[in-house]
Amino acid sequence: MHIDVLTLFPEMFTGVMDQSIMKRARDKGAFSYDTINFRDYTENKHQKVDDYPYGGGAGLVLTPQPIFDAIEATKARQHSEPKVILMCPQGEPYTQRKAEELSKEDHLIFLCGHYEGYDERIRQEVVTDEISIGDYVLTGGELGAMVVIDSVARLLPDVLGNDESAPRDSFSNGLLEHPHYTRPREFRGHNVPEVLLSGNHAHIDEWRHYESLKRTFHRRPDLLKDRKLSDQEKSWIAEWNSHSSSCEN
Amino acid sequence: MHIDVLTLFPEMFTGVMDQSIMKRARDKGAFSYDTINFRDYTENKHQKVDDYPYGGGAGLVLTPQPIFDAIEATKARQHSEPKVILMCPQGEPYTQRKAEELSKEDHLIFLCGHYEGYDERIRQEVVTDEISIGDYVLTGGELGAMVVIDSVARLLPDVLGNDESAPRDSFSNGLLEHPHYTRPREFRGHNVPEVLLSGNHAHIDEWRHYESLKRTFHRRPDLLKDRKLSDQEKSWIAEWNSHSSSCEN
Repeated sequence: MHIDVLTLFPEMFTGVMDQSIMKRARDKGAFSYDTINFRDYTENKHQKVDDYPYGGGAGLVLTPQPIFDAIEATKARQHSEPKVILMCPQGEPYTQRKAEELSKEDHLIFLCGHYEGYDERIRQEVVTDEISIGDYVLTGGELGAMVVIDSVARLLPDVLGNDESAPRDSFSNGLLEHPHYTRPREFRGHNVPEVLLSGNHAHIDEWRHYESLKRTFHRRPDLLKDRKLSDQEKSWIAEWNSHSSSCEN
Repeated sequence: MHIDVLTLFPEMFTGVMDQSIMKRARDKGAFSYDTINFRDYTENKHQKVDDYPYGGGAGLVLTPQPIFDAIEATKARQHSEPKVILMCPQGEPYTQRKAEELSKEDHLIFLCGHYEGYDERIRQEVVTDEISIGDYVLTGGELGAMVVIDSVARLLPDVLGNDESAPRDSFSNGLLEHPHYTRPREFRGHNVPEVLLSGNHAHIDEWRHYESLKRTFHRRPDLLKDRKLSDQEKSWIAEWNSHSSSCEN
């Protein structure tokens, strides 16, 4: 996979892309990436890439020309018809399913505005996907692009070892993770639950399933809406409901 | 505000924290930040900070000792009772409202695991808030912490200029932004809508309101659920509903 990032702040990406799993994934050839400063493509003699909005109002809007030209140059270089992803609050809310979809592509282009708006013609003519990583306001699209790249890169073949993929993948089964414990057995007066020390794997599995469902029920009931509950799960939920529970777990 | 970030990968933060608005906010004294590698606090002779989970299973779990000690040292240094924020998929889904709350604090500590799980005693004893930036899996908590820091920093006094805060703040009114246009008036055969060139500000405001609601209606109907709709908004929505619309805007 090749990834191009169009941004006015290419240096923002260095720390994240050059460390840990992202670095290893690149070293292994799982993906390559370039940042492209679209200011290099502007035909404006003052090197401007934004301008005031038609119709008035505060704020600046990114002009179409440098972005159209930068994207066309990038496509030509890779001989590809990539996904062109605009990071913006108006986009499709990002999910693990979308990460899986994107991980099957050969070429992704991310377009990151900074605080500015985008001229609508960019959306209509060159963008294929608009993504929002969540309902909060950021100073630019760069962090969103890094989030998407990180979540996609870890799905590429051979990027993660066993220890790295295992713990959080329980999230993919639609429930929040159960509690984890490691050594020491007692720490400042707080003990590891007995069941985890029992060696009885059927009991351990049941405890983990119970705790996982309970945490999801209390913290994120929205995740249970489309779940096909087993009889066991139904009876646990009935138990928690009968506690008229506002108890947090 | 002071921010401490506990991480095994402090270098991940440099690119993001040293550029653009985050850099300016720090230069102006709106906030200061330190990264703390909690490996420096481990008492394990091999410098380990994680271990196998009790009860078996793949994956590693962060042990309580280095994290307890790092957080206590940090609190003592700042003489504060900070929010201690764990970045994790099991956390409270992050929102703009939470960003506003956090922006009123004096001291925030972010705890970022990398792919490992957290020993549950960390959650129970030292963490005050658990935050998830979205329902997708990342290789670690670092990007989430950067997202939260960015969204909080831009709310601190005097950090943003007018041009920087204006365009995206329409998001805070509960609707997605209307389309923006800037020069040129015609670009590759695509024109700016006439109304924006009319100089009639009542018409422009109405067009923007209409487009903003329409985009929200088609893309994020969930955002309209708790909205008190005006009569004008109700009639627009009736119009779109009558189109049995699957048309995208």
